[in-house]
Amino acid sequence: MSSVPESFTALLQKGDGYTDTPVGHIHYDSFDDVLELGEVSVPELEPGQVIVEMTMAAINPSDLHFLKGEYGQPRIKGKAAGFEGVGTVVGSGSDPYATSLIGQRVSFVATPNGSGTWATHGITDAMMCIPMPDMVADPDAAGFIVNPLTAAAMFAQAKDAGSPGVVLTAGASQVSKFIIALARDEGLASIAIVRRDVHTDMLLELGATVVLNQNDPDFADQLKAAMREHKPEMFIDAVVDATSTDVFNAMGKNSTWLVYGSLSPELPPLSNPGELIFLNKTIRGFWLTPWLMGAPMEERLAVFGEVQARFGDGRWSTDVGATVALTDVMSDLANTLQDPRGKVFITL
Amino acid sequence: MSSVPESFTALLQKGDGYTDTPVGHIHYDSFDDVLELGEVSVPELEPGQVIVEMTMAAINPSDLHFLKGEYGQPRIKGKAAGFEGVGTVVGSGSDPYATSLIGQRVSFVATPNGSGTWATHGITDAMMCIPMPDMVADPDAAGFIVNPLTAAAMFAQAKDAGSPGVVLTAGASQVSKFIIALARDEGLASIAIVRRDVHTDMLLELGATVVLNQNDPDFADQLKAAMREHKPEMFIDAVVDATSTDVFNAMGKNSTWLVYGSLSPELPPLSNPGELIFLNKTIRGFWLTPWLMGAPMEERLAVFGEVQARFGDGRWSTDVGATVALTDVMSDLANTLQDPRGKVFITL
Repeated sequence: MSSVPESFTALLQKGDGYTDTPVGHIHYDSFDDVLELGEVSVPELEPGQVIVEMTMAAINPSDLHFLKGEYGQPRIKGKAAGFEGVGTVVGSGSDPYATSLIGQRVSFVATPNGSGTWATHGITDAMMCIPMPDMVADPDAAGFIVNPLTAAAMFAQAKDAGSPGVVLTAGASQVSKFIIALARDEGLASIAIVRRDVHTDMLLELGATVVLNQNDPDFADQLKAAMREHKPEMFIDAVVDATSTDVFNAMGKNSTWLVYGSLSPELPPLSNPGELIFLNKTIRGFWLTPWLMGAPMEERLAVFGEVQARFGDGRWSTDVGATVALTDVMSDLANTLQDPRGKVFITL
Repeated sequence: MSSVPESFTALLQKGDGYTDTPVGHIHYDSFDDVLELGEVSVPELEPGQVIVEMTMAAINPSDLHFLKGEYGQPRIKGKAAGFEGVGTVVGSGSDPYATSLIGQRVSFVATPNGSGTWATHGITDAMMCIPMPDMVADPDAAGFIVNPLTAAAMFAQAKDAGSPGVVLTAGASQVSKFIIALARDEGLASIAIVRRDVHTDMLLELGATVVLNQNDPDFADQLKAAMREHKPEMFIDAVVDATSTDVFNAMGKNSTWLVYGSLSPELPPLSNPGELIFLNKTIRGFWLTPWLMGAPMEERLAVFGEVQARFGDGRWSTDVGATVALTDVMSDLANTLQDPRGKVFITL
C-alpha cells in the first residue's frame, strides 16, 4: 500500500476570489492565466480528514466556471484545483472513521479546507468520501458525484412534484442523459433539446420521448406540440438563453424553470410576468452542495446506492471523450476541450 | 328597500377573449375601443347568486389590463366590466344563504358567470360577498378586496418565510401603503421604491423604513446600503422592469421576487443564473383569485376581519384620487386617470 508523501504535484489556482469581469462562458484558449503545475507540502491532517492517492479526476463545467472566478465559492490562490475524482485513501487524521477508510477506493469531492483533485493526491473530509465497489469503472467513479447526484436529485424534484415529464436543455450532456434514463425507467416523458441532429438517434435510443433541435426552422411549432402532448411541468436548464425563455413560455400552468447551469453568456429576458402571476410559474435554481450538506443521511445513502447500482449494471454509463495526463494539462487541455464527444478526465 | 329591476345600465365590454397584440401597459387615450354604456336585462338568478344595487365601484390596474385583453381571464363581449365594488343586495337566487343577504351592505368581486361592478347593478355569488359594517367608509368598502387582500396575503408570505423585511416597487401605490403599515405594526423593515420625491415624506410618515427614488443618481448605492442594513428576503414587485432586476440582484441569499403586476411594458433581463443557483433565489407570481378560492375559510375570515378592523379604526385608509359618475366614464375617465393622486372610483 502507498503511504502519505511529504509533498505532491498539483494544478494550482492562479486566480483569487471572484472575478470582477464575468464572461459567463467556459471556453478557454489556454489555461495559463488560471492554472500552473506546482508542488504542495502535505499539511498535518485534521481529525475527519483523509488524503487520497488519485487514480482519475473529472473535469466538469463547474470547474471551468470556478477557475474563471464565476462559481458559487471563491478561488484560493495556490490551492489545487478540481472538485471531484476517485482514488485510494492513503492517510487520515486521528479519528476512527477517517482511519477506517485507509486502503479503501473512494469517490469524493474536495472540500475548501482540503485540497483539489487535479493532483497526484487530494485531501477532503471522510464524510465527503463514498466507498466505491470494483464494479464501478474508473471514469464512472471519478465522475460519480457532481453529475450523477445532480441528475438524481433534480429528477427526484420533478417526480415529487408530480410532473408528467421533464424538459432538458443541453440534451446530450451527461446530466441530461442520466435524467433521460431515469425518466424512461420511472415512466415520465423526457423532451431533450439539442443544437445538432447528430445527437438525436442516440438520445431516442437511450429512451428520450422527444428530441428537438433548436436550430430547426419549425422548432417553435414542434416545441408547442410536444408541450401540449406531454405536459411537462419541470424544465431542467443548463443553458439559460433566449431559447430557455421560449421553452418556459411554451409550458403550462404550475411549471418550474429549474436553473442548474449557465452555458450561455447571454442573459435572456424574464418570462412574461403574466405567466408567473396567472399560471403560477416559478423560476429557481438547483445547487448540489447544499443538497449534499443538507439532505438526511438515509436519503443520501439511498441515492448513492441507486447511482452505484445504475453504473454497476450499465443502466448508466459515462461517455469518456478524452483523457489527459496531469502533466500534460497545461499544454493539451484547452485544445482537448474544443469539441469533446464526452466527458474529459485527468489521469495519473 | 329597492327591488330587482327588469334591466340595468352598465359599462359593457367591447373586446372578446385575449388580445393578440399585448401592449403591457395600462394607459388609455380613450375607452371608446373597449367600453360602451348600455342596458342589460336582468337574468333569472341561479341558486347562490345575488344582485347588488351598486353604491361605488373601484377602478384597479387589473381592470385596465383586463379591458385590453391582457389579464388572466378572457373578456366576454357585451358583459359588464368591473371587478369589485360595494352596494346593497336587492335580490337573490332561491337558496337560503343568498336570500339572507337581502338588504345587507356588501363588498364583493364579480364572478365571470355574474355581471361586473361598473354598473347600476352587479351580479355575483353570495360566497363572494363580504358583509360590510357601517364603520367602513364607501371608498374603503368599494376597494376592500383586490388591493387590501392582495397586500395582506403577500405580507403574510413574507412574514411566514421569516423575512426581516420587504422591498416594494410602486412604493406609493395603495397596495404598497397597506404593506408598509402592516410591516410597521409587525416589526418588519419596509424599503419602498418610488419614481418621484413627492411621495417620500408621506411614506416615511406612514412608517416606511427607507424610501428610495429610483431616479436618484446614486440609487444603486443607496439600494445596496439598504439591502445590507435590513436584509429583506421578499421583493414585492408590481412593475417588472430593469430596476426590478437590479433590486433582486442586490438582495441576498434565499430571496424571493414575488411578481403581482406588470406596470411596465418592458421585459427586463432574467437575474444572473448564478444568483438563482448559488444564492437559492426564487422568482414567482402572486394572484389573489386562487387565494380567494383556495384558502381555508377560517384563514379568509381572519384576514377579512383584520382588514375591516384596520379600515374601521383608521390604521388603513383609501386615498381617493377622484370619483367619476357611471354616466361620465366614457367622456371623462381617460383624462382622470392621466395623473391621479389616489385611487379612482365610479359612483352611482
